Amino acid sequence: MALSFRAEILAVGSELLAPERQETNASYLTGRLLEVGVGVAARLTLADDRALLESAFRIALGRAEVVLSTGGLGPTEDDLTREAAAAALGRPLRRDPAVLEALRQRFARFKRVMAPVNEKQADVIEGARVLVNPLGTAPGQLLDVDGRLVVLLPGPPHEMKPMFDEQVLPLLRQQAGGRAIVTRILRIASMAESDVEQLVAPIYTRFSNPTTTILGGAGQVELHLTAEAASAEDAAARIDELAAAIRQALAGRVYSEDGRELPEVVAGLLKERRLTMAVAESCTGGLLAARLTDGAGASEFLERGYVTYSNRSKVELLGVDPVLLERAGAVSEEVAASMAAGARRAAGADVGVGITGIAGPGGGTADKPVGLVFIALDGAAGTRVRRAHFPYGGRQRVRFQASQAALEMLRRGLLGLAPL
Amino acid sequence: MALSFRAEILAVGSELLAPERQETNASYLTGRLLEVGVGVAARLTLADDRALLESAFRIALGRAEVVLSTGGLGPTEDDLTREAAAAALGRPLRRDPAVLEALRQRFARFKRVMAPVNEKQADVIEGARVLVNPLGTAPGQLLDVDGRLVVLLPGPPHEMKPMFDEQVLPLLRQQAGGRAIVTRILRIASMAESDVEQLVAPIYTRFSNPTTTILGGAGQVELHLTAEAASAEDAAARIDELAAAIRQALAGRVYSEDGRELPEVVAGLLKERRLTMAVAESCTGGLLAARLTDGAGASEFLERGYVTYSNRSKVELLGVDPVLLERAGAVSEEVAASMAAGARRAAGADVGVGITGIAGPGGGTADKPVGLVFIALDGAAGTRVRRAHFPYGGRQRVRFQASQAALEMLRRGLLGLAPL
Repeated sequence: MALSFRAEILAVGSELLAPERQETNASYLTGRLLEVGVGVAARLTLADDRALLESAFRIALGRAEVVLSTGGLGPTEDDLTREAAAAALGRPLRRDPAVLEALRQRFARFKRVMAPVNEKQADVIEGARVLVNPLGTAPGQLLDVDGRLVVLLPGPPHEMKPMFDEQVLPLLRQQAGGRAIVTRILRIASMAESDVEQLVAPIYTRFSNPTTTILGGAGQVELHLTAEAASAEDAAARIDELAAAIRQALAGRVYSEDGRELPEVVAGLLKERRLTMAVAESCTGGLLAARLTDGAGASEFLERGYVTYSNRSKVELLGVDPVLLERAGAVSEEVAASMAAGARRAAGADVGVGITGIAGPGGGTADKPVGLVFIALDGAAGTRVRRAHFPYGGRQRVRFQASQAALEMLRRGLLGLAPL
Repeated sequence: MALSFRAEILAVGSELLAPERQETNASYLTGRLLEVGVGVAARLTLADDRALLESAFRIALGRAEVVLSTGGLGPTEDDLTREAAAAALGRPLRRDPAVLEALRQRFARFKRVMAPVNEKQADVIEGARVLVNPLGTAPGQLLDVDGRLVVLLPGPPHEMKPMFDEQVLPLLRQQAGGRAIVTRILRIASMAESDVEQLVAPIYTRFSNPTTTILGGAGQVELHLTAEAASAEDAAARIDELAAAIRQALAGRVYSEDGRELPEVVAGLLKERRLTMAVAESCTGGLLAARLTDGAGASEFLERGYVTYSNRSKVELLGVDPVLLERAGAVSEEVAASMAAGARRAAGADVGVGITGIAGPGGGTADKPVGLVFIALDGAAGTRVRRAHFPYGGRQRVRFQASQAALEMLRRGLLGLAPL
């Protein structure tokens, strides 16, 4: 695809060069830039070294029309992005009184004394536009240098993303002005990547625009459809055609095409139908409740949750029969069903969910291996239990996949789709 | 700090610049290089563009003693690493007859005809040593250019890793002459980055080895101390000295120096002391329980958890007085205390935790703004409540910080440290 502008992204911070660390800002920016037709030719992760940073800015400015940096805008001695960019541009830094005053007020608002080290966050490169940062102390900076755009963004993703989306992207969209690139993500829960691939490869290989990328993760597969056209509408129309064919091939398994993750989709269905629910979790230990309450307005549908780790709590709180626990074991179809029904009854809710399983790494047997999970759904129409086995990837992955399977079971139940 | 050698890593391939793609070769190489005292100053991910690659090699050679590339050694038109490196070094490429013959034999062994495009994989930069690749077709190349090491490695990790480990690392270990680099991470919970900086900057700026990097995140600050010395023991001793001074300045706030995160530290304290606990969560909606049960063996200490989202569930499950709920409001010091005490009593546990607050984005008032959270700890010594306000970063961050503050309160209580 022909791209109008070429960008380089500099991710600044020695800590990003730790072997175990994954840099995520550059990936995010790459995706957003593609949407407005700006292709990223290089991404650099750089140590907090003044000379290195200055050289990186100078070189990037010689190669790309758009140079974005993230990080190095904080108050500490390691924060060198401002100085390095100013030197590469051959422009002075000036302490901006308005930015300084805003910093002071921010500290005062939170009843804290501003340490003097913070003042350097008010240093602005001559000719730069200040990008306000309502979510942190370090403002961003934006310069137009002979038609080349230089943007300094803060490092924390929750500060960087809204600043870029709201204050930088509209400008780029305007300047790029030509071809539109649109990406849509189709999400599928609780299905193996190879099974999805088997069903959809015969379809998407017929198309060269949109292109399709399959991305598999724990408990989820994503299909990224990307189309290029003269307008966003034309690109979207191209995607519509392919998405419809994929939806049909996957028969009800695509749960989202609008960016929403599974908990949000399920929460939306419960709210629409004005249904209340209660959850009882053993091996997931609160993860399902935590995921369901991550979005605003969860109080509309979640009456309560139980984390019943001990057998005693299963008996006392959910009314599980001690004889059943003894006979079938805590990890069993019967106990999952009893947990779901008990949670629903105690809460007086419309729907109850019960999860019990072996998250590992210990506790597995030949009969009941690590990764075995029973998920029960209890409602007006009765109780349904699914037995699932997640053999790969350790405790955290088992727990996540169990919560994901419970949400998919709930989604299908709410939509009246046949159980898996 | 004086690292013996400084390295840059160039990861080559347009596919690595897809938004959803994570580059893993550079992380791997960074870890291996650190082991032999070679610090990575920059990691670049580069599109398959001849001019860009040549410029990247030229610049890296001017800044670093070790330049490693991965990818771009295959047979297709996009594979441009050989040509770009040769041009940057000002040396010709020569087709190596021995490499060509080995390629032919490899194809013959797998009973395949070698397409002519494959021949360019036998092109070797003048003066380069060929690195054999038993697991793929593209050999690597290694050059010593006036004491600077240039290494071209293949992109597939299963080919790259053994080639690097067996044919490159021993050479680097020899040249680096046994210098060791050790990093230790000190973690501090529920304290602002600038407050930590203010206390520790006067200390760490006195040291040039170890170097110190401060990294702030939601509800947590990390201090990365990195020392270089002739042996790992000497490097560790240097870190010990600085870490002791920092620990003292931060008076009990450093919760981990061994890589453990806060939930694991708290779980360890509870297990050591053979204490059981119960948690009652409102605004965190199960997040505290989920974080505590993320590690194995949580059943040793977590008797149960309650997600009491509705007032009714607070009354029924925790025995919170409805009159108190009406008078003080669900988000109040009194209700947090009653939740903690109720959870402890109902579970017959040693410790109870209660969390209630306004996670937002809605529901805030002038008196009780979004981000206001009350956290209560109930035990044999009585009940203690902390009022905290997390004004930044939205619902998910408020919830995470509330869980973090609860864990820190628990840790201090278990260690007998004064409340914050």
